[in-house]
Amino acid sequence: MIELILTDLDGTLTMDRGTYLLDTRAIEALRRAERAGIRVALVSGNSYPVLRGLYNYLGITGGIVAENGCFVYYNFQTERVCETIPRSVVEDFRNKFNLRESWQNEFRKSDFGFTPAQITPEIKAWADERGLVVQSSGYALHLAGKPGGKGAGVKRLLELVGVQSEKVGAIGDSRTDIEMFTYAKVKAAVGNADPDLVKEANVKLKLKSGAGFTEFIEMILG
Amino acid sequence: MIELILTDLDGTLTMDRGTYLLDTRAIEALRRAERAGIRVALVSGNSYPVLRGLYNYLGITGGIVAENGCFVYYNFQTERVCETIPRSVVEDFRNKFNLRESWQNEFRKSDFGFTPAQITPEIKAWADERGLVVQSSGYALHLAGKPGGKGAGVKRLLELVGVQSEKVGAIGDSRTDIEMFTYAKVKAAVGNADPDLVKEANVKLKLKSGAGFTEFIEMILG
Repeated sequence: MIELILTDLDGTLTMDRGTYLLDTRAIEALRRAERAGIRVALVSGNSYPVLRGLYNYLGITGGIVAENGCFVYYNFQTERVCETIPRSVVEDFRNKFNLRESWQNEFRKSDFGFTPAQITPEIKAWADERGLVVQSSGYALHLAGKPGGKGAGVKRLLELVGVQSEKVGAIGDSRTDIEMFTYAKVKAAVGNADPDLVKEANVKLKLKSGAGFTEFIEMILG
Repeated sequence: MIELILTDLDGTLTMDRGTYLLDTRAIEALRRAERAGIRVALVSGNSYPVLRGLYNYLGITGGIVAENGCFVYYNFQTERVCETIPRSVVEDFRNKFNLRESWQNEFRKSDFGFTPAQITPEIKAWADERGLVVQSSGYALHLAGKPGGKGAGVKRLLELVGVQSEKVGAIGDSRTDIEMFTYAKVKAAVGNADPDLVKEANVKLKLKSGAGFTEFIEMILG
């Protein structure tokens, strides 16, 4: 019996990968899950205020893992689980590799977003030398303080909620969601997910993005 | 012919006043307006990152007026239109009147939110003495730098979008929305709006909150 669903946002609750448009049927689906007593949590590379806003307006109660794993919210409590990165380091990184910063970087402290989303060997070496972590969601390049990655935040969220992995379902579309699967029994990839995520999934959905999320909730609720 | 719709968020795009639940039919309605070539703008007391997140995920293009009028976003450009308030003043205010701060205050610079939402004569006098502005939306008490209020932000947004008031529609539910009406030809109050707003409206909708918003869009689109 699943008690908590961890869901990614971009490409998972949206109409497709590569669009921000929320799928309104996916919104209705997550509300059905909540009404059935299953908490839904947002686990995303977005900043905390963006996710907390959505969380409130969607009407879910399972908590938030923001900054790609580095910041956790549950029940009016917040916790930072990665080291912070000074702005000067963020700017050095941006300038050195000629990247564009996410507008949300102003509201982040541990995990920063950039485009283009490709990780080059030079970028990897630069981060390694400084004890920093780089990941790509396909949408954005993430530079984070240690430990970085969705796993760290999800681990802490499960402790705060007080739920075991055997009662957790997770759903996503990209490689950054693989770490989430470590803490879930039901591991679902939407129909248009990255093949690297599909390989790790035990539920391979037919439909893409938000429609796949709705398919997943219907499966969970029976 | 309406070219831009200014919409409040809380109590206007939600299922009712006093709930954060977004009405999914209202989301579909604002997307219909956008597809018909009418831009939709969010005008709200919320902080910029919360509104920018929603704006992106809703899929609208008319811009944002955040911080209850003090901060404007349009087409990747941002502008602050009120004086900022130092954190020390925000904390003095909170402590003196025993108020609870909004979690979003961390992400604001000119307009700060508190509960309870009532303005007492002592609060008004304290703000006046310091050249600050207080307003209540019914949901939150707002303390802002001058000029404060939705009017200032809406005026600037209309300049940035390049649209005249005669081509603007506005919709809201509370007293803080009255200033928005100054810059709109079509002035709509949802069915459950504050009577002070209804008095200023030239369109009095039958249905409440998000259902009223949907009724409004159907009226505009014919």
